[in-house]
Amino acid sequence: MIGTPILPEIRELIEQRNFSALQRLFNDWLPVDLAELISDLPENEQAILFRLLPKDVATETFEYLEFEAQQNLLAALTQKDVTRILNSMSADDRTALLEELPGTVAQELIKLLSFKEFKIAKTLLAYAENSVGRLMSPDFLSVKKDWEINQVLEYIRTYGHESETLNVVYAVDDHGKLVGEMLARDLLLSALDKKVSEVISEEKIITLTATQDQTDALEAFKRYDNVALPVVDSNGYLIGVVTVDDMLDVAEEEETEDIQKFGGIEALDDPYIDIPLLQLVRKRAVWLVVLFLGEMLTASAMSYFEGELAKAIVLATFIPLIISSGGNSGSQAATLIIRSLSLGEITIRDWWAVMRRELLSGMMLGGILGVIGVFRVVFWAMVLHRYTTVWLLIGITVGISLVGIVLWGTIAGSMLPLLLKRLGLDPATSSAPFVATLVDVTGIVIYFSVASMLLKGVLL
Amino acid sequence: MIGTPILPEIRELIEQRNFSALQRLFNDWLPVDLAELISDLPENEQAILFRLLPKDVATETFEYLEFEAQQNLLAALTQKDVTRILNSMSADDRTALLEELPGTVAQELIKLLSFKEFKIAKTLLAYAENSVGRLMSPDFLSVKKDWEINQVLEYIRTYGHESETLNVVYAVDDHGKLVGEMLARDLLLSALDKKVSEVISEEKIITLTATQDQTDALEAFKRYDNVALPVVDSNGYLIGVVTVDDMLDVAEEEETEDIQKFGGIEALDDPYIDIPLLQLVRKRAVWLVVLFLGEMLTASAMSYFEGELAKAIVLATFIPLIISSGGNSGSQAATLIIRSLSLGEITIRDWWAVMRRELLSGMMLGGILGVIGVFRVVFWAMVLHRYTTVWLLIGITVGISLVGIVLWGTIAGSMLPLLLKRLGLDPATSSAPFVATLVDVTGIVIYFSVASMLLKGVLL
Repeated sequence: MIGTPILPEIRELIEQRNFSALQRLFNDWLPVDLAELISDLPENEQAILFRLLPKDVATETFEYLEFEAQQNLLAALTQKDVTRILNSMSADDRTALLEELPGTVAQELIKLLSFKEFKIAKTLLAYAENSVGRLMSPDFLSVKKDWEINQVLEYIRTYGHESETLNVVYAVDDHGKLVGEMLARDLLLSALDKKVSEVISEEKIITLTATQDQTDALEAFKRYDNVALPVVDSNGYLIGVVTVDDMLDVAEEEETEDIQKFGGIEALDDPYIDIPLLQLVRKRAVWLVVLFLGEMLTASAMSYFEGELAKAIVLATFIPLIISSGGNSGSQAATLIIRSLSLGEITIRDWWAVMRRELLSGMMLGGILGVIGVFRVVFWAMVLHRYTTVWLLIGITVGISLVGIVLWGTIAGSMLPLLLKRLGLDPATSSAPFVATLVDVTGIVIYFSVASMLLKGVLL
Repeated sequence: MIGTPILPEIRELIEQRNFSALQRLFNDWLPVDLAELISDLPENEQAILFRLLPKDVATETFEYLEFEAQQNLLAALTQKDVTRILNSMSADDRTALLEELPGTVAQELIKLLSFKEFKIAKTLLAYAENSVGRLMSPDFLSVKKDWEINQVLEYIRTYGHESETLNVVYAVDDHGKLVGEMLARDLLLSALDKKVSEVISEEKIITLTATQDQTDALEAFKRYDNVALPVVDSNGYLIGVVTVDDMLDVAEEEETEDIQKFGGIEALDDPYIDIPLLQLVRKRAVWLVVLFLGEMLTASAMSYFEGELAKAIVLATFIPLIISSGGNSGSQAATLIIRSLSLGEITIRDWWAVMRRELLSGMMLGGILGVIGVFRVVFWAMVLHRYTTVWLLIGITVGISLVGIVLWGTIAGSMLPLLLKRLGLDPATSSAPFVATLVDVTGIVIYFSVASMLLKGVLL
């Protein structure tokens, strides 16, 4: 937003080595905007600009950078700067960076950490990928439940500077077991002489464990609208905290996976532009080949009707039109139902209500396309001066087939996600291409069956 | 999560009128779980259970309920209870409820508000739908910039209970103009004798205006990771605050719209299951008809090749297989590019890098399907004992066409979103069905052109 329009000016200042002007300029920039600016610069200028930032701003800006720019800076900065940044970054962002780097590079960098940070990094990296442990930060504040709020506030002012979040402070008993949480709101509103035990809510605290999958954590955050959730070990001792900002990345990854699945492609692990070409092709080929094998049945279905086709070539010309209408209406229905399922608007139990709606919708949509189809055929025949009553019959064949195929597409597209969900599979697997393929094959059978009935003795 | 498994037990307790057991049971439930439980009950039992909740829990639970359950409770509760809930709800949630209700019902309810809340409700409802004004809450805390932190904390303890959020407190100058913001973190960490003006950051504050679109607000929240953003009028005076939890709903709506567009359907305004059937059909019919009209070109293209078709009926049997492969590869490419664009992984400027990747991917994917296609044709001919060299030629025709069509589908699917973006349109409009239709028509031309060249003098 802020970075791009003045990029040329900034690059000129870098060229002129006018560093004091740059420093003045950046004085009231936010780290996120600085990070965007740095990403937009060519690699060799990124480090020049980064070195101009005040120390605290530099670390925060670094945390906002994409992995690629981070890697570039780590290579371009002095060992002293790298050491300072790695030691002052928040532990969870550092874990994310280290896990992306090649093993040998990560090992080198970990050696630059202080003893304390080294231990933290080792512990976090020991958790499985995509586990809550990889997201959590060991920098949290816990207070005893018999302290007064006054004491808590004093404690925060003294020891809170390193804490990942101050939006929540955790209360523990004498043995260090988690017994409650206080939001910043509670701390700010409570009378100073109240005890922590009087302030913490008596409701059940929602906790995570470090070995849980990150998607479980996402579910919990979505459900309870929390700013942070505590991570406990199997004995209920507090070992870390996960904050909601880390969840946005998890949510984005999940959503991307769903969208890619729906587009008929295996989920990619990396951004489109970074993934090696062969891996990209492999991920796409799997589904394409599966769909291709399925679609082969259309050729078999059509050779079954080759006799009819030979007698009435004109029937062939409407095949793409007819089967694609079934595919399109199926994609629409599948999209609606998959999204409704994932938003919790409907559940499997609603299948009959969905079926009723889709039966009616399918008939109406089929009717609309059917009428247009009849007109198209008849009008075309008249324009080409080939109009005979046979053409009217062909038109009616096309029209009736469209009703049947659109109706079938709608039902298949809406029921398939529900069926998949019932079988414990991901409804999003019933992708647009998958539904279209299913409907194509049956569409051909419907079309030729209608044609056989209506045109027997006339054309066939 | 918590509600569903014990639903039968709870319904039994309701049946037995065992209210004290229910109250004990709900003692350590969170409002969000209570809301889910209530939604799962039949309408006539919802109010029974709701009346058992303590007053403060009741209001919060009410805020978590879906609109339908809220409406049901408003009808079933006493006027006294309704008055209490409406007056104690947060102003932004109340606005959302009032805007969903029929005008006359909303008017009746607004009359139940106290003079202060009445004024607030009227003001907020005066802003346009989907504007920031409808989301904002007028309950925020602002402090003078020359106060000491000590004073601020005292002020919060006295006046902060009504504030929508205490994660941010705003600093204003003597005229009430917004000059800075302090996070809860800043308040908790600062020395008590520091002045507000020393604590507020010198960076630019990000602000919203009440007339801005809600999607602008969403962009700002995503970019700056804020817990709340201040809303100012044209003179820079603070008039409200928007909190990040309200953004989740906006984000979900946006995402649903995108997904529906991609599935080839106009965005729905209401949940699938609630939208009137005719409106649902209308929204779907628009795109289906547009695609149908486009797909009609396939019939025209095929009648152009009717001569070839008549001579070699067998060509027709492979048409669905061939054009659907183009459609599927196009859907895949479009999905990848649309998602990458929306994540900011690529921009229009990367079009050439994308084109290069897709050229290579398309050729490889086309090659894979082409080889399978050749085998399919030749193998089939051998099984049916119709194998002649003509069949090998047909196989090669199918194979080469597949390479061409998959390549074309891949290029079209990847470039179309970029082109739409360049023209200032939404890339998501290049939906799977849209790309498939585009590729179908050209696919037929490619297929018959290849056939004409290879089979001239043999079959044609």
